Amino acid sequence: MSSTKTAGSTTAPTEFLQANGQSYAYRRFGNGPGLPLLFLQHFTGTLDNWDPAVIDSLAAGREVILFDNAGVGRSTGKVPVTIAEMARHALAFLDGLGLETCDIVGYSLGGMVALQMVQDRPSIFRRMMLVGTGPRGGEDIMHLEKPSLAKRIQDPANRGYDVLKKIFFTSSAASQAAGEAFIRRISQRKDDLDPPSGPKVASAQIAAFREWEGFKGERFVELRSIRHPTLVVNGVHDEMIPVPNSYRLSENLPNAVLLTYPDAGHGSLFQYPESFTRHAAAFLSSDSESAAF
Amino acid sequence: MSSTKTAGSTTAPTEFLQANGQSYAYRRFGNGPGLPLLFLQHFTGTLDNWDPAVIDSLAAGREVILFDNAGVGRSTGKVPVTIAEMARHALAFLDGLGLETCDIVGYSLGGMVALQMVQDRPSIFRRMMLVGTGPRGGEDIMHLEKPSLAKRIQDPANRGYDVLKKIFFTSSAASQAAGEAFIRRISQRKDDLDPPSGPKVASAQIAAFREWEGFKGERFVELRSIRHPTLVVNGVHDEMIPVPNSYRLSENLPNAVLLTYPDAGHGSLFQYPESFTRHAAAFLSSDSESAAF
Repeated sequence: MSSTKTAGSTTAPTEFLQANGQSYAYRRFGNGPGLPLLFLQHFTGTLDNWDPAVIDSLAAGREVILFDNAGVGRSTGKVPVTIAEMARHALAFLDGLGLETCDIVGYSLGGMVALQMVQDRPSIFRRMMLVGTGPRGGEDIMHLEKPSLAKRIQDPANRGYDVLKKIFFTSSAASQAAGEAFIRRISQRKDDLDPPSGPKVASAQIAAFREWEGFKGERFVELRSIRHPTLVVNGVHDEMIPVPNSYRLSENLPNAVLLTYPDAGHGSLFQYPESFTRHAAAFLSSDSESAAF
Repeated sequence: MSSTKTAGSTTAPTEFLQANGQSYAYRRFGNGPGLPLLFLQHFTGTLDNWDPAVIDSLAAGREVILFDNAGVGRSTGKVPVTIAEMARHALAFLDGLGLETCDIVGYSLGGMVALQMVQDRPSIFRRMMLVGTGPRGGEDIMHLEKPSLAKRIQDPANRGYDVLKKIFFTSSAASQAAGEAFIRRISQRKDDLDPPSGPKVASAQIAAFREWEGFKGERFVELRSIRHPTLVVNGVHDEMIPVPNSYRLSENLPNAVLLTYPDAGHGSLFQYPESFTRHAAAFLSSDSESAAF
């Protein structure tokens, strides 16, 4: 286990942890009084998809840990087709790191994994942030085949990261400008990059979304026993995991504050990185039993 | 026009402004770099119903102005039976004060009046906060006849302010304790009090709620042209003006951040005064064109 306290998003070396019969790729940097903060990434996202404006700001107050789940980036293994199995990999990684307690932030797919991990092993987590995500049994979760999304994803004019600008941001001039700035920021890292995710990663993760949409018994009941202070964040115009999923989280989690952003889609944290990190840092710095911060 | 810069909620004298053929009761105190902040009160609430923990905290950074609308407290005139007429009184009051620009916070009934005022006279307002309220055409707005509310309101064990503890807070021990603390705080003022509102005030204001529930044409369309940065706040368990009304505000106002609180009802700002005033002060201190703060 090593730690690179002075590195940032664009320079931190990728490290590899052997655990659970796998080799997990991760980056770990930052320092300060806060607990380590584990970041769980979105659909097809790798270590290289985290916005330096978000990560480096939060790394000024705590260690941040970016993690490739099994089969993503340079982590070995097969991409699981369930959130439950992704959570098992991430918990094995945390155990391998030897962390006794940490905070956790899950974005999109990563939020579902975070929710599952907190239910499976509540004692090792203190505070949780859930961004652009939804509960088990949520509705309209990552249906990329919807005409509104499919059109933008399949448009040949949207190459590489450009597709993120179209699907993480709204069509307004301000949101598109924020999307361009986001792409410039994540393009700053030039070396030691993860390979982009291919169709195998995508199809397994889509299968996990479909399984997560299902539920047995009373919908959302499992959320009501999660006491961890939680900050739920979303853009009101998220088309990938629409904002009612965030409403259901904050209504059913007994200790969750909800923050929504205007003129913002799935990538609200990247559209308003200064606001998001200001709120996130205040939330993480609180030692109250209540999520209110 | 006078201003009592050193007074606080419990000591500020009630003043009276002659305007629009009426005598409007108000209190004005506080100072700091912020714009004056006009507070618009809830159903049957008077100048004495504002929580000192909220008001005095915000008065540390700006002048605050508490206002009795027509027919409420010691303001003359008939209580209007429409939000539109309440907005006309409040605008006449602001004109009488000679304020050229200010920020505005409306709570519950007051939020509806604030929305109407901002539509009627957009140029005199800079930023708006809407707490525990709903848009025109909102649903389930202040139906005190609902069994869940009627039972608590009519319970003879709930005397005076005790009823507020039952209807503004949830049934949890933490929320009820916060409710007791709130009642202690609003009971600190002993002199120069408003008369409590009677059934005439209540019935006129209920009529205004019923009129506000109606809409013509496309629902919420009028919100989409309000560009003012807005902070929408509510408790997720508000039974008086349920939280979907806040969702509709933040989804349809083009420039609104939503903040919801856990284990909280209609009185979320009084349950979490430290958190509410921290966010409110940060929001009001921003000079961005965006509501994100």
